[in-house]
Amino acid sequence: MLEQTIAAIAPLDEKSMAAARERQAELTKPAGSLGRLESLSIQLAGITGRLDPPLTERAIIVAAGDHGVTAEGVSAYPAAVTPQMVLNFLNGGAAINVLARQAGARVVVLDAGVAADLPAHPDLISRKVGYGTANVSQGPAMTRAQAIEAIEAGLAAVTREYERGLHLVGTGDMGIGNTTPSSAICAVFTGAAVAEVTGRGTGIDEATRRHKIAVVERALAVNRPDPQDGLDVLAKAGGFEIGAIAGVILGAAARRIPVLVDGFISTAGAMIAAALAPLSRHYMIAAHRSVEPGHRLMQEHLDLQPIFQLDLRLGEGTGAALAMPVVASAMAILNEMATFSSANVSNKE
Amino acid sequence: MLEQTIAAIAPLDEKSMAAARERQAELTKPAGSLGRLESLSIQLAGITGRLDPPLTERAIIVAAGDHGVTAEGVSAYPAAVTPQMVLNFLNGGAAINVLARQAGARVVVLDAGVAADLPAHPDLISRKVGYGTANVSQGPAMTRAQAIEAIEAGLAAVTREYERGLHLVGTGDMGIGNTTPSSAICAVFTGAAVAEVTGRGTGIDEATRRHKIAVVERALAVNRPDPQDGLDVLAKAGGFEIGAIAGVILGAAARRIPVLVDGFISTAGAMIAAALAPLSRHYMIAAHRSVEPGHRLMQEHLDLQPIFQLDLRLGEGTGAALAMPVVASAMAILNEMATFSSANVSNKE
Repeated sequence: MLEQTIAAIAPLDEKSMAAARERQAELTKPAGSLGRLESLSIQLAGITGRLDPPLTERAIIVAAGDHGVTAEGVSAYPAAVTPQMVLNFLNGGAAINVLARQAGARVVVLDAGVAADLPAHPDLISRKVGYGTANVSQGPAMTRAQAIEAIEAGLAAVTREYERGLHLVGTGDMGIGNTTPSSAICAVFTGAAVAEVTGRGTGIDEATRRHKIAVVERALAVNRPDPQDGLDVLAKAGGFEIGAIAGVILGAAARRIPVLVDGFISTAGAMIAAALAPLSRHYMIAAHRSVEPGHRLMQEHLDLQPIFQLDLRLGEGTGAALAMPVVASAMAILNEMATFSSANVSNKE
Repeated sequence: MLEQTIAAIAPLDEKSMAAARERQAELTKPAGSLGRLESLSIQLAGITGRLDPPLTERAIIVAAGDHGVTAEGVSAYPAAVTPQMVLNFLNGGAAINVLARQAGARVVVLDAGVAADLPAHPDLISRKVGYGTANVSQGPAMTRAQAIEAIEAGLAAVTREYERGLHLVGTGDMGIGNTTPSSAICAVFTGAAVAEVTGRGTGIDEATRRHKIAVVERALAVNRPDPQDGLDVLAKAGGFEIGAIAGVILGAAARRIPVLVDGFISTAGAMIAAALAPLSRHYMIAAHRSVEPGHRLMQEHLDLQPIFQLDLRLGEGTGAALAMPVVASAMAILNEMATFSSANVSNKE
């Protein structure tokens, strides 16, 4: 399923992009004056192959998983919070539920590896690869087969949502401890020093951050992930939900659905996706730039410019939900504005 | 009317802000993890005096005016575009109409000094102070009495909208040539060199930009505006619509209505407002950071952090409209999220 998906990811539609660029130039505004809204509309045209793609069916897929590395004391919260927050998502009380409602998006939770049994729920997709990953500071987070399984969990989720109707998807994450594997993934792909890309996560103090840096360094020394091999990086640095996010992105790209990539953990997933299928990068829209220090490097590596910089560091897909109305606005500009000739407005002298 | 309005502007409500801060700490997310969304919700509580202010009645007030300084060849577009674009606004075909529709906001145009007669229209508020300002490179843009009149045009507009129902207002501008007075205003208040705060506006080339810098320098040398006197700066550096924007901001602040300040021209208006009534600053929300080089300095001077940085340089209130859903989302977070105790989620260890 993964190989087929990767093979199905095609370049953006240049013809639609050219048509969108041409139309932007005719609208009653100085050329380029809507900045990133214009480039977003051109990208969306390239993704969907049309100038007026429907964007009403929206979903945030929140991938959840646990992390053996929490045994090292790298997080401010106990691991029990992962399943507690999944229940909070399913009950509609978390930040992502509020922001998704504001954005007209549904929230779907994907259990890719939570270390607890979860009750069946219509908004919960159960594709548990394991009860949390192994402790990456002592060995690989998962086997290579599990890495594929985690990605395929994401593919399955996006397929399910596609079948329900899906025009715009956002990635989200939940997993206590998951900034640790994300920092590891960031260091592997960007080549940056671990200390430079390891932050405070949910709010650890400086001493704990120094400890976290040592844990990430040990994980990389023990496992030696190969940056040329996305599956190897995922298996060794870990994160069932990070693999699932990569799967959501690859599945969306294969179906030409624009995908809003949320924060630090989602962008770790995006790096895995881009390593497996470089063309998938063109289907990604960076929602925001997180407080996590590695996020900027990740986005530069992927050549993604964030829409927001709101000092968010929550994950869950919160930034992706916030960005959905901006994407819709970018397309509305392309489709609803008058042209210089239709409105009898003089163009540049 | 202006003096009464200034006297009516009170500090933010500290009690509501403390209650909002306390509530943020109880919501199921790490403290501070929603960054600017949290500080926005606290500011909105302080502005409105409540944790759950209604935000459904939204308006963008687009102030329009012409500029005698266009005779110096400082713009890429002919001055005739100002009334043409006003008609475009009234017909619903401009960028601001599209973005305001997306944001659930109405668009109201305020003619503060367009150099043409405009047809009556229910969405047009006619408070023409003059048929364009005088050429600031040769003398003051307007008299001190006209400066007051321009601000009062803005006050009248926000009063009218308040009477129709107004929970959230955004400022907008239209006026060919108006980055020139805005650069002058920026230089006067920030003390920065004119060359540093004068940009390409709607898209002039580098030679024209150098000419524009010389025009702004001449305007400041001829008029010597006093940065301690907001009315003097407005009268000498000019902009009927810039004065009107200051009036919209002051009127909103006096009525405890949050006001989204759009781009470079709107922020020039905000600087006039802050010079006249320093407390008005607390009622302002910076929507975005424009491409115009002076905008960052203005926002730093006003201690405003923008929500977006999308390389916009259109004005009209486009950034303000884009930011409205973000403001609404910030308040929804405060009101709709579960708390740690209500959702049975473990808090930080």
